[in-house]
Amino acid sequence: MVSFEPVRTEWDIVRAAHAELLVTDLEVSRRFYVDLLGFVVTEQAEGALFLRGYEETAHHSLVLRQSDRPAVTHVAFRVAAEPDLELLQAHFAAHDLPSRWVTDEPGQGRGLRLQDGSGFPLEFYHSMTRQPSLLRSFDRYRGAHVMRLDHFNLFVPDVESSFEQFRQLGFRCSEYTSTDGPEQQVWGAWLYRKPAVHDIALTNGDGPRLHHLGFWVADTQSILRACDVLAAAGLSAAIERGPGRHGVSNAFFLYLRDPDGHRIELYTSDYYTGDPDQMPLRWSVSDPRRGTFWGHAAPASWFEEGTLAIGPEGNLVELSTARLRDRPPTAT
Amino acid sequence: MVSFEPVRTEWDIVRAAHAELLVTDLEVSRRFYVDLLGFVVTEQAEGALFLRGYEETAHHSLVLRQSDRPAVTHVAFRVAAEPDLELLQAHFAAHDLPSRWVTDEPGQGRGLRLQDGSGFPLEFYHSMTRQPSLLRSFDRYRGAHVMRLDHFNLFVPDVESSFEQFRQLGFRCSEYTSTDGPEQQVWGAWLYRKPAVHDIALTNGDGPRLHHLGFWVADTQSILRACDVLAAAGLSAAIERGPGRHGVSNAFFLYLRDPDGHRIELYTSDYYTGDPDQMPLRWSVSDPRRGTFWGHAAPASWFEEGTLAIGPEGNLVELSTARLRDRPPTAT
Amino acid sequence: MVSFEPVRTEWDIVRAAHAELLVTDLEVSRRFYVDLLGFVVTEQAEGALFLRGYEETAHHSLVLRQSDRPAVTHVAFRVAAEPDLELLQAHFAAHDLPSRWVTDEPGQGRGLRLQDGSGFPLEFYHSMTRQPSLLRSFDRYRGAHVMRLDHFNLFVPDVESSFEQFRQLGFRCSEYTSTDGPEQQVWGAWLYRKPAVHDIALTNGDGPRLHHLGFWVADTQSILRACDVLAAAGLSAAIERGPGRHGVSNAFFLYLRDPDGHRIELYTSDYYTGDPDQMPLRWSVSDPRRGTFWGHAAPASWFEEGTLAIGPEGNLVELSTARLRDRPPTAT
Amino acid sequence: MVSFEPVRTEWDIVRAAHAELLVTDLEVSRRFYVDLLGFVVTEQAEGALFLRGYEETAHHSLVLRQSDRPAVTHVAFRVAAEPDLELLQAHFAAHDLPSRWVTDEPGQGRGLRLQDGSGFPLEFYHSMTRQPSLLRSFDRYRGAHVMRLDHFNLFVPDVESSFEQFRQLGFRCSEYTSTDGPEQQVWGAWLYRKPAVHDIALTNGDGPRLHHLGFWVADTQSILRACDVLAAAGLSAAIERGPGRHGVSNAFFLYLRDPDGHRIELYTSDYYTGDPDQMPLRWSVSDPRRGTFWGHAAPASWFEEGTLAIGPEGNLVELSTARLRDRPPTAT
Repeated sequence: MVSFEPVRTEWDIVRAAHAELLVTDLEVSRRFYVDLLGFVVTEQAEGALFLRGYEETAHHSLVLRQSDRPAVTHVAFRVAAEPDLELLQAHFAAHDLPSRWVTDEPGQGRGLRLQDGSGFPLEFYHSMTRQPSLLRSFDRYRGAHVMRLDHFNLFVPDVESSFEQFRQLGFRCSEYTSTDGPEQQVWGAWLYRKPAVHDIALTNGDGPRLHHLGFWVADTQSILRACDVLAAAGLSAAIERGPGRHGVSNAFFLYLRDPDGHRIELYTSDYYTGDPDQMPLRWSVSDPRRGTFWGHAAPASWFEEGTLAIGPEGNLVELSTARLRDRPPTAT
Repeated sequence: MVSFEPVRTEWDIVRAAHAELLVTDLEVSRRFYVDLLGFVVTEQAEGALFLRGYEETAHHSLVLRQSDRPAVTHVAFRVAAEPDLELLQAHFAAHDLPSRWVTDEPGQGRGLRLQDGSGFPLEFYHSMTRQPSLLRSFDRYRGAHVMRLDHFNLFVPDVESSFEQFRQLGFRCSEYTSTDGPEQQVWGAWLYRKPAVHDIALTNGDGPRLHHLGFWVADTQSILRACDVLAAAGLSAAIERGPGRHGVSNAFFLYLRDPDGHRIELYTSDYYTGDPDQMPLRWSVSDPRRGTFWGHAAPASWFEEGTLAIGPEGNLVELSTARLRDRPPTAT
Repeated sequence: MVSFEPVRTEWDIVRAAHAELLVTDLEVSRRFYVDLLGFVVTEQAEGALFLRGYEETAHHSLVLRQSDRPAVTHVAFRVAAEPDLELLQAHFAAHDLPSRWVTDEPGQGRGLRLQDGSGFPLEFYHSMTRQPSLLRSFDRYRGAHVMRLDHFNLFVPDVESSFEQFRQLGFRCSEYTSTDGPEQQVWGAWLYRKPAVHDIALTNGDGPRLHHLGFWVADTQSILRACDVLAAAGLSAAIERGPGRHGVSNAFFLYLRDPDGHRIELYTSDYYTGDPDQMPLRWSVSDPRRGTFWGHAAPASWFEEGTLAIGPEGNLVELSTARLRDRPPTAT
Repeated sequence: MVSFEPVRTEWDIVRAAHAELLVTDLEVSRRFYVDLLGFVVTEQAEGALFLRGYEETAHHSLVLRQSDRPAVTHVAFRVAAEPDLELLQAHFAAHDLPSRWVTDEPGQGRGLRLQDGSGFPLEFYHSMTRQPSLLRSFDRYRGAHVMRLDHFNLFVPDVESSFEQFRQLGFRCSEYTSTDGPEQQVWGAWLYRKPAVHDIALTNGDGPRLHHLGFWVADTQSILRACDVLAAAGLSAAIERGPGRHGVSNAFFLYLRDPDGHRIELYTSDYYTGDPDQMPLRWSVSDPRRGTFWGHAAPASWFEEGTLAIGPEGNLVELSTARLRDRPPTAT
């Protein structure tokens, strides 16, 4: 049984803030993310593309780095102040999780990098170069009008143990799915620091792997337009699931697979979770409206495929088998 | 090979105008069509419910009639003037298709009823009682905000022969799908009288059967809201296919199954076809974007299931096997 | 008193089809229409820009021609067949309205050009070069996603007499505004050939002048986006009226003034008018919901300003004073 | 000159959470808020109506209380924990602002009530009875689909002094308008606790008075639908300003006046402000895009009219003249 009790921490993690993906052809990726989806290019340097959404004033929320194989190198959380990083370093050390400082990311101050309890590479950082907001530059909007990074979703082999790890870091739970019967084992969990449904979601599966990066768009129209634009450009195969309405989070969503197979969610219209008496909402993992409120089944790929992680030392992170074996009974 | 050449006729068929479905529980159907989808009730009489959309000033575009089994009794086209009906009667007689007059439909003048070349029950009529438009009664709008009937879609065993029949009646072809190879046999056809993509579509399949009735809604939001409303009411199983963008017609669509399994399409945003040099657009039946531009496959039920027809004498219309056996190669 | 009785004609006018505006700086106009609103360029030749909407397969629906002063040279209607043009020529001759043939418009067959009873330059034509539809080229969509020309709106000094002229040409009336009291003089009229609310509207005012060209867009979102894009580009002054909901037509609208002051309407979501018993809908000219259903007053410029016309001989068309002097009582 | 430096406080104000309006006919107000706009009724008791939005799990965000004259009795902020209330009490006492405990509000724990530096009645509270979220009850949605309370906007005579008061309470500034010239006096300010554009806005004007209550809706369509529904119900006069896009906040908005003249904003689609390096965005008060990005002028009523406040002792709060006399140069 997990505890849902919020933990008050000395440090203050603000939100999910950026991620870095390795891609095998930067120009092909650029066409997908920039030309079609409408991400903004802050900088192209050293074999990497630094992207942000129209409303973001941070240097980047997504780094695409040329490599010989697809992978994720880290997902990063922003903290409220520099000293929070030392507090986190000590916390992880106390849990036998070694970390190290990274200081060579363009546009960004030092980052604390580590593999978490499941082995997944996380980063924490405070400072980043500011860029102008393009929120009101509607004449520059293209494609899906991507606004900002919203959340990460990870496949983890033991959801309950990863859940506890993030709870200790100060995350609260907005919604979760669990098995039926007396045990009610947690199958998926949506955890937040900013007062929305999540900054990170944990999904039962062989892992750790990145399930997807979620980006906020302004409205449902942006998501329909993304489908139209991708299909017109001959990339309808990039549309993996949706558009549809999630039961969990109530958001309107679309899942895409980028040219390297990395999964991207376009996401909008969840709800406010900042009240002190906010309570986690449980869904049975066998309720089909959990995933898509309208009853549509997710494809098998959605439960099976994800992005492998590269650790801080360049090592490929080994996978463990999911503790809860089966996918939801309602999956195809 | 079919001819696409428009035929100038003495009569003037205006548009697809109403249909009558037999349902097994009128109160259950009422909840679906009126309470959830937002159809307007013009009249409930003699075991039947006469419905229209918000903009319609005709007495009804959909009749639901209590019966012991689901079926369609007729789909009806409106003609420009009363004498057009005698001209059509003579035309059908010349093709050995006997017809008879029907004079007992509430709110409607006499109708010419017959089984067409495939055996499907059609009706033609001119006059109908007018009702107030509720187009500007936004405070009465509910559910999907259904505006008006748009089209019929029939399963027919021999699309090319049905195509020729409707061409002789004055219908023009906006788009069609055909098999690849030198023969290019027509697999589906979209035929119109009003200058939109269709009043009637013909789909290869065991038939004749009604594939679906298409109703116009004002925008894509109406379709997303229909999904949300049905799912909230516990009827997500009614959502058979979509929402999505059609390749053919470019319309945004949703297919629903009513409580008796009758298929209803909510449809919006196709295009104008009234120009004199309008040319039919061909799609290969093996192009997956044909059905859903975004690449989604239609479910098997969409190719297999339809509503049986009752002939003018109360007879169940016999089915013939589809001439082109296979469903599109891209179907699941 | 006007007659609303439809007139059956020997010729068949299909729809409002194109217009030509004189502009004083073609590059400035190009930025407005092409870069910001998203019109498609078919051809640029001989000091003129030939534009169309995304769904249009005709060579052009809007011609912008470089000149030393802004004006409109003609609005043009398409007819169903070439011989319709001779029939129209004879009709106009019988009404002492001389016409002449124009054969030098790029992409277009011969046109019959004349000044109508009010002096306004009209054109009728049948043939035009076909272009590919870009309806499904969503990756090329820009700005307001303009789909097609929908209608013309003219200031005429004597609405009732112009109304009768268009009725004799086969136009039917969908809606009209009239003064209160026993006379009920027609103040504005919406007349159609295609089964929508209008191909041409007549507005009481000093004239004849062009009030505006109306272009169809797919949805209300396209109109909101047009406002955002224009404002972001520093052209918020181009937004004259709206966005809003018309009472007349029920359409969602936006009025813009192009760099030369020509008025353009973006327009969507009116209704079907093709039924044989369609009846004209009357509005009192003193009902504020007539113009904007939400009660917003139109600015003074909307009642006063329009584009002067150049006749077939290059002459500036003289204005007559409006017969009904006052603007609607509800105008600011 | 104001300071924009965030202040770290011992207490934690979570967000703008509810307000109470006195209305003169509760049934007339109920029709406006519940039947037309779609607020949810939690409870009707003791001459008051307790309302919430579809996603709200708190007992109420808007109280309408029958009275003999329209007024606002308080706007209330929720705090993270009960002891925060004593800390606030001490803080206000140190600033010579006496407060008292209120314990008789249905559905709510004790509240700390006081008149702030400008004389406006504020409340702070921690606990409130939970209600079920109706976020997924789409079949119950009506009217504008109001989701939740978003913010308060007050007329205050001295914006800079009120700004400093809220800064000391822990509020940060997202955007502000100021006069041109070397002094740059603050004319309006948007201040937040939750990471959105604001929980409270301060507007230069005779005050203190309530300018408006802002409620969040899910999308722009909800706002257009609200206009349509109100106009259809004969209440177009309730539409005071908009719909439009704000420059400040980038939100899409609509201002309504309820049956007693209280001003309500429907508001959607602003942006995230929770980053530690978030910087206030300045607008010149003479920039017309500040108010409506599209350039529309606000009506005079918007600058002049507001709701009078009743103090904790039932006293009518006296008004002081605005320190900056003029309305923005761009106002009509």
